[in-house]
Amino acid sequence: MNLREYLAGQQKLVDAELDRLVPPETAIPETIHRAMRYSLFAGGKRIRPLLCLEAARTVADEPPGITVPACALECIHTYSLIHDDLPALDNDDYRRGKLTCHKMFGEAMAILAGDALLTLAFQLLASMDAVCGGRKARMIAELAAAAGTVGGMIGGQVADLEGEGRPPEPALLESIHRAKTGALLRASLRLGAICAGADDASYESLSRYGEHVGLAFQIVDDILDVEASSEALGKTAGKDAQQHKITFPAVYGLERSRAMAGEECARAHEALAGFGARAGRLHELADLIVHRKS
Amino acid sequence: MNLREYLAGQQKLVDAELDRLVPPETAIPETIHRAMRYSLFAGGKRIRPLLCLEAARTVADEPPGITVPACALECIHTYSLIHDDLPALDNDDYRRGKLTCHKMFGEAMAILAGDALLTLAFQLLASMDAVCGGRKARMIAELAAAAGTVGGMIGGQVADLEGEGRPPEPALLESIHRAKTGALLRASLRLGAICAGADDASYESLSRYGEHVGLAFQIVDDILDVEASSEALGKTAGKDAQQHKITFPAVYGLERSRAMAGEECARAHEALAGFGARAGRLHELADLIVHRKS
Repeated sequence: MNLREYLAGQQKLVDAELDRLVPPETAIPETIHRAMRYSLFAGGKRIRPLLCLEAARTVADEPPGITVPACALECIHTYSLIHDDLPALDNDDYRRGKLTCHKMFGEAMAILAGDALLTLAFQLLASMDAVCGGRKARMIAELAAAAGTVGGMIGGQVADLEGEGRPPEPALLESIHRAKTGALLRASLRLGAICAGADDASYESLSRYGEHVGLAFQIVDDILDVEASSEALGKTAGKDAQQHKITFPAVYGLERSRAMAGEECARAHEALAGFGARAGRLHELADLIVHRKS
Repeated sequence: MNLREYLAGQQKLVDAELDRLVPPETAIPETIHRAMRYSLFAGGKRIRPLLCLEAARTVADEPPGITVPACALECIHTYSLIHDDLPALDNDDYRRGKLTCHKMFGEAMAILAGDALLTLAFQLLASMDAVCGGRKARMIAELAAAAGTVGGMIGGQVADLEGEGRPPEPALLESIHRAKTGALLRASLRLGAICAGADDASYESLSRYGEHVGLAFQIVDDILDVEASSEALGKTAGKDAQQHKITFPAVYGLERSRAMAGEECARAHEALAGFGARAGRLHELADLIVHRKS
């Protein structure tokens, strides 16, 4: 099966599992569940769930319950987008080509829908039947740290907001992005590894792959914000420069940024050396992340 | 030791533990940690932690690690206050006599500080050393459900917002309050019970106590909003009527509401019958909750 077909199938699997795990639109109070599902099913690429699933598969054939951490990661990612898009933060009207949650449901509901998805992520992990309490707790601790303030997503978001208009320095840039997007991408690999019962060596290799892929992902994101059209991105392009954000193109220029994305991608491949053929899809995903157009 | 001295000592214990468990103000990025701590240490009464601690003590003498779920509950409670006070929700400038988080740190930081406290609550529970993975997962599942959309805090908040201006009906009133404040208060007892290793019968008794105390708490809250001054409450009084909220006094009148609070309190006492003298402080806390003046 070629990669495109494979990914389409996997995205369908993730969507079906999200549909099963998230309360239906008819659950009371309906509005909040409509808002959560609106943003969850707004056409995300499911990169974090895919990384989680493939990490697990490098360790075991079909680890029981593996779709649950995959869905929990997507809940966290979606909550972060809903809150980032709010008027008080990035103030975006469009996301993935559709109106943002607060434009559809109002600010109050968007704040609460984000809160609800964050809460649900932990509830899903804690309620898993297929793995023991110890693994559940490890996954939750890792996910919460990756989403949190110290080196995690919220910390990166704060540093990003506070960095607007500051001199574009390489160290600040890297620390922001490691936290803002890198930590959750690395956690995607780690949750897959923990759920599948990886040994320490595999866990470390998958973490390293996740770090390099995470940085490559962010560099490409910054490049696309400069180069791609709003139409292709499904969100407002060129906002980084407009908001004087610290980005890779702003610090290194486009040419050097492209080369850096390639270097990070190469290191991601290297990290997988010990897995041989089992890591085939992770190799493909790294390439896909670097060469994507939106 | 009389109750007042005892409670002051317990509140000090909770405050010291929160100080130990929450990242310091010097942790990078500093602003978010300042905002989290500003709201956490703004003079809360620590009712949820106290209920958690005392529930555990009805089951075991000093259950290892019990201050961690107590602090996690306070993190969840504080996050909910920060987000509820936002302009898009209740739009309050004062809380516990101090400026609300968004008035001090701006809306963006208040949204993120709430998110961070919610995330931290689960991180603290998942990272506990003193209890096994199974108990950690049970506590997290219970806390997430109590904070969530289906019969939990967020669901209650949504129902409350959507209920503004609707005819004040008893069934709607009770369902809102069971979810909005009752679920987390009941979870306070349950987390204490789980952490201490309660058997099913004790768990059920403590849950029942929590339900009645929770309802009593909310009835008194609604009464105080009518009767007490803003000064005594440390927040704007009379807002419920102004926002046409569905409250106990609005549905039943003040007299009947007072009687109902007393009835719920009596049922809370009954639920503790099996514990004998071990539940002494829980009996006192029920009375305190009903007779409080702010």
